[in-house]
Amino acid sequence: MSTAGTPPLAIAITTGEPAGVGPELTAAALRQARERWPQAHFTVLGDRSLLEARAGAGWPATQDPVEIEHHALAVPAEAGKLNAANGRYVLGLLDAAIDGAVSGRFDAIVTAPLQKSTINDAGVPFTGHTEYIAERTNTPRVVMMLAGSSERPLRVALATTHLPLKDVSAALTIDGLVETLSVIDHDLRAHFGLPAPRILVTGLNPHAGENGYLGREEIDVITPALELARALGIDAPGSYPADTLFQPHYLKDADCVLAMFHDQGLPVLKYATFGEGINVTLGLPIIRTSVDHGTALDLAGTGRADAGSMIAAIDAAVTMARHKRTA
Amino acid sequence: MSTAGTPPLAIAITTGEPAGVGPELTAAALRQARERWPQAHFTVLGDRSLLEARAGAGWPATQDPVEIEHHALAVPAEAGKLNAANGRYVLGLLDAAIDGAVSGRFDAIVTAPLQKSTINDAGVPFTGHTEYIAERTNTPRVVMMLAGSSERPLRVALATTHLPLKDVSAALTIDGLVETLSVIDHDLRAHFGLPAPRILVTGLNPHAGENGYLGREEIDVITPALELARALGIDAPGSYPADTLFQPHYLKDADCVLAMFHDQGLPVLKYATFGEGINVTLGLPIIRTSVDHGTALDLAGTGRADAGSMIAAIDAAVTMARHKRTA
Repeated sequence: MSTAGTPPLAIAITTGEPAGVGPELTAAALRQARERWPQAHFTVLGDRSLLEARAGAGWPATQDPVEIEHHALAVPAEAGKLNAANGRYVLGLLDAAIDGAVSGRFDAIVTAPLQKSTINDAGVPFTGHTEYIAERTNTPRVVMMLAGSSERPLRVALATTHLPLKDVSAALTIDGLVETLSVIDHDLRAHFGLPAPRILVTGLNPHAGENGYLGREEIDVITPALELARALGIDAPGSYPADTLFQPHYLKDADCVLAMFHDQGLPVLKYATFGEGINVTLGLPIIRTSVDHGTALDLAGTGRADAGSMIAAIDAAVTMARHKRTA
Repeated sequence: MSTAGTPPLAIAITTGEPAGVGPELTAAALRQARERWPQAHFTVLGDRSLLEARAGAGWPATQDPVEIEHHALAVPAEAGKLNAANGRYVLGLLDAAIDGAVSGRFDAIVTAPLQKSTINDAGVPFTGHTEYIAERTNTPRVVMMLAGSSERPLRVALATTHLPLKDVSAALTIDGLVETLSVIDHDLRAHFGLPAPRILVTGLNPHAGENGYLGREEIDVITPALELARALGIDAPGSYPADTLFQPHYLKDADCVLAMFHDQGLPVLKYATFGEGINVTLGLPIIRTSVDHGTALDLAGTGRADAGSMIAAIDAAVTMARHKRTA
């Protein structure tokens, strides 16, 4: 509940690629979010006509506490059909949300999926939401963390993200891992209300290298990094074989798992969260959550896309913003 | 039920490392297996005194249809304390089971965990059960597959197994993948009663390489292999991003997932099967199943080790042997 004198939590939602499912998922998710979070104020960024056309069962944004911040499309958007002419529109939503969060107008931002190619085809080099937000906020190191909903609270952060598998080993460094662990530890305390986060760390190789028999990165890089992190007060045991660690028996003691690479951590996360996983960018000066799926062009405009991840992303943004405000 | 004139299914169980949990898990599992599989005859290979001492709540092997085939320990075994003097004993159990399966005396063998170091320290080079059985049966290519119990029927086979992560890319070849898929397809038909197995195949890189943007192995190796496999009549769609494929929505159409490497496939398998996963070696002329855990030296002799995986391994051996006999 908002307290007298305390402004409501302000959450911005970028509706993303206009040919994708972002606009309709935002509408569907907000129908629930308004009930769940009466103390929050939601600002939806996008083209008003597009958003109203895609709202399906009705757009809740015409009444308080939801408002649409209108940004005009360059050309009309057709569901399922990408058009680079709207690339700068998509980027404009993101810029407005980031700027509003940096200035303090928004307590958190939630991003619906965008299509990288639309932006690149519009002539703007763009590798992804996370990298773009990091650059625009001058953040030296961000960490991608995926998380389940409150009923399925598994959290998995990644030491490396979108790299060819054969480049992963060379990308792991002692300093990099210590920084990654520091970011996770800080944000779990500041934005997740966890006063003593416990981060279980995987090895890189099968069986965490079996004492060097199946690879030396555990001995040469990961173990030294964990020793340095522990000296900084970070509770980061490991490294553990990934297929041992990701068993419910071990996970019940973890606030987060740090996996060494994308396909070591995310298959089990996605399996466990049943389409309700979300993506959180740690290390930023602002709070940002996102769905963990793409634009689903084949479902856009049908009303059949599942809003579970968008609902979970909004829930997480509100919860994190509340923790940050009371920290 | 055994039919008049048909001999009962004969299952051999090697009790493995005498300092580990193998003997007690075998006893615990057989208490259930005798009820579930009255048509099967179980032969337990190990030292009779050891097995009786570790049986805890009672050894079911003193009555038909379970018999102990006595192999003498070299020195008395102490729970939790490895002793290389018994290395050749462990290997002797395995040799007897393999020879019995090759000769037709056994329809299948189930292996309890052993400790590689005990055998190596006894002067016999040994890299693992799977490799040893392959060599002794002159099998050119075996495939490691892990599987859940009948309630959790996920199956995951691996294109590469115990390799340092940085060596995985170079180990993938078109011919190797086609052979692996052929082995899986054959054994799922012959030993699992699946007349038209569907094998979903992961990519190697994050997002299955994103059209070459995150690695080229999908384009250069995996896709050509899948085309060749399909030309052989194998139903092997892919390659798919691992974190997409391992979602219940996709898995429901799969009889098996072929993952490219250990930590891409096994964390989700182990998460999903809750300690009841088993290891099956495909491609052998004999049927062999195994637990998917180690010797658990810290639990040996306590009676607290969970027999779930051993029970599931016995169930799978009986089921596979029955399919093979009726195929």
